[in-house]
Amino acid sequence: MKMISEFNDHDHIEGQFLLGSISKGVNANGGSYFSVELRDASGQITAKKWDATLQDEEIFVAGNVISIVGETNKYRDALQLKILSAEVVPLEEIDVDRFVKAPPVSKEELMSKFNNYVNSIKNEDCKKLLNYMIKKFDDKIYSYPAAVSIHHEYSSGLLMHSITMADIAAYLCKIYDANYDLLITGCLLHDLGKIIELEGPIVYKYSLEGKLLGHISIMVAEIRKAADELKLTSEVPLLLEHMVLSHHGQPDFGSPVMPCTKEALLLSLIDNLDSKMVVVNKAIADVEPGNFSNKLFPLDNRAFYKPKE
Amino acid sequence: MKMISEFNDHDHIEGQFLLGSISKGVNANGGSYFSVELRDASGQITAKKWDATLQDEEIFVAGNVISIVGETNKYRDALQLKILSAEVVPLEEIDVDRFVKAPPVSKEELMSKFNNYVNSIKNEDCKKLLNYMIKKFDDKIYSYPAAVSIHHEYSSGLLMHSITMADIAAYLCKIYDANYDLLITGCLLHDLGKIIELEGPIVYKYSLEGKLLGHISIMVAEIRKAADELKLTSEVPLLLEHMVLSHHGQPDFGSPVMPCTKEALLLSLIDNLDSKMVVVNKAIADVEPGNFSNKLFPLDNRAFYKPKE
Amino acid sequence: MKMISEFNDHDHIEGQFLLGSISKGVNANGGSYFSVELRDASGQITAKKWDATLQDEEIFVAGNVISIVGETNKYRDALQLKILSAEVVPLEEIDVDRFVKAPPVSKEELMSKFNNYVNSIKNEDCKKLLNYMIKKFDDKIYSYPAAVSIHHEYSSGLLMHSITMADIAAYLCKIYDANYDLLITGCLLHDLGKIIELEGPIVYKYSLEGKLLGHISIMVAEIRKAADELKLTSEVPLLLEHMVLSHHGQPDFGSPVMPCTKEALLLSLIDNLDSKMVVVNKAIADVEPGNFSNKLFPLDNRAFYKPKE
Amino acid sequence: MKMISEFNDHDHIEGQFLLGSISKGVNANGGSYFSVELRDASGQITAKKWDATLQDEEIFVAGNVISIVGETNKYRDALQLKILSAEVVPLEEIDVDRFVKAPPVSKEELMSKFNNYVNSIKNEDCKKLLNYMIKKFDDKIYSYPAAVSIHHEYSSGLLMHSITMADIAAYLCKIYDANYDLLITGCLLHDLGKIIELEGPIVYKYSLEGKLLGHISIMVAEIRKAADELKLTSEVPLLLEHMVLSHHGQPDFGSPVMPCTKEALLLSLIDNLDSKMVVVNKAIADVEPGNFSNKLFPLDNRAFYKPKE
Amino acid sequence: MKMISEFNDHDHIEGQFLLGSISKGVNANGGSYFSVELRDASGQITAKKWDATLQDEEIFVAGNVISIVGETNKYRDALQLKILSAEVVPLEEIDVDRFVKAPPVSKEELMSKFNNYVNSIKNEDCKKLLNYMIKKFDDKIYSYPAAVSIHHEYSSGLLMHSITMADIAAYLCKIYDANYDLLITGCLLHDLGKIIELEGPIVYKYSLEGKLLGHISIMVAEIRKAADELKLTSEVPLLLEHMVLSHHGQPDFGSPVMPCTKEALLLSLIDNLDSKMVVVNKAIADVEPGNFSNKLFPLDNRAFYKPKE
Amino acid sequence: MKMISEFNDHDHIEGQFLLGSISKGVNANGGSYFSVELRDASGQITAKKWDATLQDEEIFVAGNVISIVGETNKYRDALQLKILSAEVVPLEEIDVDRFVKAPPVSKEELMSKFNNYVNSIKNEDCKKLLNYMIKKFDDKIYSYPAAVSIHHEYSSGLLMHSITMADIAAYLCKIYDANYDLLITGCLLHDLGKIIELEGPIVYKYSLEGKLLGHISIMVAEIRKAADELKLTSEVPLLLEHMVLSHHGQPDFGSPVMPCTKEALLLSLIDNLDSKMVVVNKAIADVEPGNFSNKLFPLDNRAFYKPKE
Repeated sequence: MKMISEFNDHDHIEGQFLLGSISKGVNANGGSYFSVELRDASGQITAKKWDATLQDEEIFVAGNVISIVGETNKYRDALQLKILSAEVVPLEEIDVDRFVKAPPVSKEELMSKFNNYVNSIKNEDCKKLLNYMIKKFDDKIYSYPAAVSIHHEYSSGLLMHSITMADIAAYLCKIYDANYDLLITGCLLHDLGKIIELEGPIVYKYSLEGKLLGHISIMVAEIRKAADELKLTSEVPLLLEHMVLSHHGQPDFGSPVMPCTKEALLLSLIDNLDSKMVVVNKAIADVEPGNFSNKLFPLDNRAFYKPKE
Repeated sequence: MKMISEFNDHDHIEGQFLLGSISKGVNANGGSYFSVELRDASGQITAKKWDATLQDEEIFVAGNVISIVGETNKYRDALQLKILSAEVVPLEEIDVDRFVKAPPVSKEELMSKFNNYVNSIKNEDCKKLLNYMIKKFDDKIYSYPAAVSIHHEYSSGLLMHSITMADIAAYLCKIYDANYDLLITGCLLHDLGKIIELEGPIVYKYSLEGKLLGHISIMVAEIRKAADELKLTSEVPLLLEHMVLSHHGQPDFGSPVMPCTKEALLLSLIDNLDSKMVVVNKAIADVEPGNFSNKLFPLDNRAFYKPKE
Repeated sequence: MKMISEFNDHDHIEGQFLLGSISKGVNANGGSYFSVELRDASGQITAKKWDATLQDEEIFVAGNVISIVGETNKYRDALQLKILSAEVVPLEEIDVDRFVKAPPVSKEELMSKFNNYVNSIKNEDCKKLLNYMIKKFDDKIYSYPAAVSIHHEYSSGLLMHSITMADIAAYLCKIYDANYDLLITGCLLHDLGKIIELEGPIVYKYSLEGKLLGHISIMVAEIRKAADELKLTSEVPLLLEHMVLSHHGQPDFGSPVMPCTKEALLLSLIDNLDSKMVVVNKAIADVEPGNFSNKLFPLDNRAFYKPKE
Repeated sequence: MKMISEFNDHDHIEGQFLLGSISKGVNANGGSYFSVELRDASGQITAKKWDATLQDEEIFVAGNVISIVGETNKYRDALQLKILSAEVVPLEEIDVDRFVKAPPVSKEELMSKFNNYVNSIKNEDCKKLLNYMIKKFDDKIYSYPAAVSIHHEYSSGLLMHSITMADIAAYLCKIYDANYDLLITGCLLHDLGKIIELEGPIVYKYSLEGKLLGHISIMVAEIRKAADELKLTSEVPLLLEHMVLSHHGQPDFGSPVMPCTKEALLLSLIDNLDSKMVVVNKAIADVEPGNFSNKLFPLDNRAFYKPKE
Repeated sequence: MKMISEFNDHDHIEGQFLLGSISKGVNANGGSYFSVELRDASGQITAKKWDATLQDEEIFVAGNVISIVGETNKYRDALQLKILSAEVVPLEEIDVDRFVKAPPVSKEELMSKFNNYVNSIKNEDCKKLLNYMIKKFDDKIYSYPAAVSIHHEYSSGLLMHSITMADIAAYLCKIYDANYDLLITGCLLHDLGKIIELEGPIVYKYSLEGKLLGHISIMVAEIRKAADELKLTSEVPLLLEHMVLSHHGQPDFGSPVMPCTKEALLLSLIDNLDSKMVVVNKAIADVEPGNFSNKLFPLDNRAFYKPKE
Repeated sequence: MKMISEFNDHDHIEGQFLLGSISKGVNANGGSYFSVELRDASGQITAKKWDATLQDEEIFVAGNVISIVGETNKYRDALQLKILSAEVVPLEEIDVDRFVKAPPVSKEELMSKFNNYVNSIKNEDCKKLLNYMIKKFDDKIYSYPAAVSIHHEYSSGLLMHSITMADIAAYLCKIYDANYDLLITGCLLHDLGKIIELEGPIVYKYSLEGKLLGHISIMVAEIRKAADELKLTSEVPLLLEHMVLSHHGQPDFGSPVMPCTKEALLLSLIDNLDSKMVVVNKAIADVEPGNFSNKLFPLDNRAFYKPKE
């Protein structure tokens, strides 16, 4: 099956696509039609479903993956797709590989970095907790995105964020004389609750647990459960629970307790730093020098300027 | 050993007392002395330790229980105690019964009400979780105070609060058509995390876990652990975790998630109502009609007026 | 005249309807049309007014009651109404009974409960003030809604809210040893200012006084005026003015003074509790178990989950 | 009786004085004494009452006016007063003239300005309301202070504030084309509720009504009552009620409704401006050029700089 | 070239117009068209550009000045313009006089008032700084608007605001005994940074400097630079820098430092007063007595009532 | 002259000391005395000045450096100093070396790191601005503290903070692909305004400019002035002004403009990170493992826990 980037004029198209934004219009004859955005990992295209029926209302819902038969055509120099028929693809039949971009760093490299960090930990309790979680969450650690995403994101977003944080943490540990084992373990564990908070496989949305508890409370409870099962008796589990609980830095951002250890503070500061820098870098990637980005919601709705040189 | 309310002039006193507020003064000859408030369950008395030594600095600390030899005397019509010698009583030797007031309702009555509520629950998972926690926290459910308290409070404060809430919840259940089993279970469980958050036995202070996690996150994790061990598969544990997590109503008050079920909302509203009413009732108890109470910190520092009639 | 729930295909329709949401579209020929929602107490229906004229702009305004001649037809299995002619019904000609749902509890029962509460009051000044207000506001006490409402609400919303509050107050009075007469009088009077704040008869909007003063300040002044005319000399009028003034609990919610008596605090807590519970109960009434409601503006825009069981 | 500014060394003193700040000390022999600040309109002096008795505790309370017998002496070049006996002066026996400073503008001049403004009003309803209030509050309009004051302030503070505001309002009326009659009436009436909110005669404190309602709600109700008695039917009373209600500008400052007419907005802006300028002018009056004032609580705790030139 | 107010039916139109709001529609045949608002100093008119091309996307951008050929016609009794061709007018070819309304006070009068104020200053350093800025900003002082404006505003908005403030300041100087020279200089200089913050010529938008620094920081730096070049050694430049820096009154409104001198406070209060009064006066100008204005964003989204009489 | 750490019992002491906290007491005979803390770079000691005179009031002021004659003695095993005579040391006669601790990293090393960073910059305008500032502020760059400090801090605090930030920035530059020259220049320049904001030499307090403008606005103006003198025409000065202006991250913390370039955001995040980590590290330095630090004001008044291991 062709990917969107490979479409030409007058192609006959069959395949799975993700529905992005959707708008509904009215024809001259009073009937209605859908104008939608279709996506796969290679790009996106505008498509029309004319003469929308009542069933179409349930098919054309943003976030659905649909299976389509259609034809391409040119409209004002841009390629469009006319949808002839469409149906929703059941979760288990989704061809995930069509939708997930390869991350900028290969999965192998990420896994190798992750394992290196795990192996660098000397504290026994940190190590046990890490291995417990690796076993529990398994492959999802490598495949989860870092946030709710209506568009197909890189897979491994969660892992990339954790590893970048570990990279920074390893450097700052020396400057501020912090406990390496605690800090690195915190970087690797702090967001794993998202694996329960979100559910996929293509479009990640909040699960019921995610909505009622949030990934922070989920992960604190998971560490407590693990420490209990592993019969850990040191302060380490409590310190890690505190780090996870406080890593959003303040109550308004989801942390009922603010950081009260050096390592918890450092973790929250690095998390804050990386989260913001990733948003900015993504936002200005396609901005021409000398111009501003769109307004960025997670950065107080500011637009960012990309200097001329 | 005599209780404070039984002291007369020129008594020789030996016994354990709780140190309340403390101030240090300087003698005319440049030496220093302590003027302290001693307490037991029967009342309080001002006491002086003249010629304070360096060791006294470590003994006369608010919250300590000290063992004293002294003599009473009258100063301006009020009985005072002159402390001749004093030493700190180790935790395990404290005679708890000297310090804890009997609650206004007898322990037997409270326990009977508590058990009646447990028995009124029909949902199996609610029942299992309640029994798990009763077994785990055992006698502490009946003996814990409702809050950090520098002065000797009623024992059973935690239990009284939970039962008053259950009384109100049972009534409101009918008005608002809420789930009785969930709501009553929530009332009985919601604050049990305080048994880990605080540590006694006389003066209850925050434990390390209390400071780093808080009773809400602790209790959510305990329910999760219990549900796991009990192999519960219904939505009930999640709904109860959500109720506990959100019962302070908003992030600034310690709930990272706000109530999102009818029962969670009702629980948080009843908790808010009872907490405030208890503060006001206590504050105006000794106020003369036609006057204002002291300013109440938990009520935005307002003073409350007690009407003339 | 047929109610909306009685419409069939190809009916000829004449009658009064309330205009709900309105949208304007453009025809293929460049003319414009209105697509509106018509309502009466029995339900709602989508209607079209094709070839909108300039006069139609003034007729098709949300909240107007219009008199219509039209015909029903089916569009995609749903009944629609084609409006042939429409004109605005003057306030005095509105057939109120077509728009107001019977409350879930009958008016007679509500009036009987209200009178029972009035009769249960023993304090003379409370009684006089209540009777003064009953005389002044008369039938409106029984017919007013509890809030601005763009859609046809139950009549008696104001009364139902007051009586539910009195029910709860009577129960809590005993638990917290509050003054029954003050508290019940407060429940019955606290929102009567809405009779001046809002004006109807079908669609209740803010009156000029409502916008410039608000129901709280209006009612405080009305009590003061009444107490003056009735030559009351006890503290009671002042205590009731304070209860009314502070019943929204804080400045940001419209109370310039916060509750400073036990009864004022209890009134504000019960008002807060009932207001929120009513919103939630209404919002989840039609939600399928296992799903979330819409986002609720008065509850910080949260969606509420209806448990599966 | 001598005023404080007339004291010399070794004078025998008898007379009434206001108690300012008070501190209690302990003698070398263990007895206690009071060191207090005595005030009258001419100044202040430190005084000691040695060998304080239990009764003295009730006499030496800040804000009391006490009648004293004593003797002056010098201590480190400063005159002190040794109090031999003291008793509280009942309210009705206070010699008010000993405590109240003449305002910087004479009472006659203030009254004449006030009357001129009243006479300049053309609108009949404004005029009637003004005259109603003048009759009701009478001489207190001329004698009340502008705020709670623990120290003897100028009398007429309330009137001076109102007249300065009227002066500014008359000027701004022309610039912004506002309604002169409404605005000037608003300036003259807006704070009259303080006559009920505060009670004197020397030390003005909040009355019970002041605490439970506040001067804004009191005055709104008074205007409503007056308009009712005067049978006014124009919009004027409502507009004035709105102006009074909103003149603190926002909910957090005591106005449940924000200004929604041009005149209400202008009134609140002038009130804000005059209140702040008066605080600053008073605070820097005695500051040497090139220095900062104390921190000013009503101005966000800022200190103000007085330029060198 | 005809102004919009002079258009008649069936006119052939050629000329420059400012593009106001823009919406894009779809034809019955699937093509798209623009419906736009054209403006000049005399008024505004709705215009259509049918069969929109890809190039039109870049021409029909709100804020562009476009040169048009078109024809008028009537649609439902209102005059419309059918655009036959359009192109963007380069900045340097814009005929500014077509777009800028004459201010209500003539430019000559404003300049004369401005010069009078400058001449009334006696302090040498104030005078030098004023003259420096007059030379630097020159004619722009007379032509700049007071704010970002998507619609053609009066020219001289900046100057009118400064002069109104000076008028009020001169009056209040006497009442509050403030330094005339500092205060008037502050009024005249405080907003000149807007000449760098905004850029025109017709539609004033934020410049890059405006976005990255804001007019307050820009002007503080300009005064500092000027004082340096002029070798001023008195406190005057610092006092003026402080006045400019603090004139928005608080951090949330753009002043990192709050007013800490009498003149800085007065300047900020007058600025606040004039800014708000101008908004209200403009908003209610066309409102019928007895009605409310639109909601005003800079006034907390309140609607203002215009009294009946 | 002996340093405090070298004092023995019965020493005769002459020398300069910094006055830390001060309290005043009353003797048994009614006279007063000062109990003060004296400091030098080696430590601190409690000292008494008995029989305080009126002149002593002006000498014993916290922050003064005083020249003393006195004698040591032991009081309860601790060395005390009895002050026989004391006078204030004029600024120009202060022996600065007695009060300033050597920084943990040698001044030479810091200067070498600073110069290395300056030399690593390739952008010409960055380089010119840096050299301009180095020339202007000269030696103060190396000697200034990082904050107002009532106690003798390390000298070079300002420089150490800047260099640590540069160290972190150089590392993060690569991770987030930021402009090295801008970012490093920003790190080195961002706080230089403190050299004008604070004034020493021993006890650094806010200067008048510091109070009225703050170091951020001062530095923005200094860069603007420099860029003007250096006739720089690139975007670089504007970008650096923006970085300095926004480096506190939000209006409430002193930045009227929030970061809107990648480098400005990164600078503010690193500044925030380093400022907090330095506070925590200092606070827990002397805390025993398993205990909490004092409450830290700049960290929302939280106490920090130092883990047991």
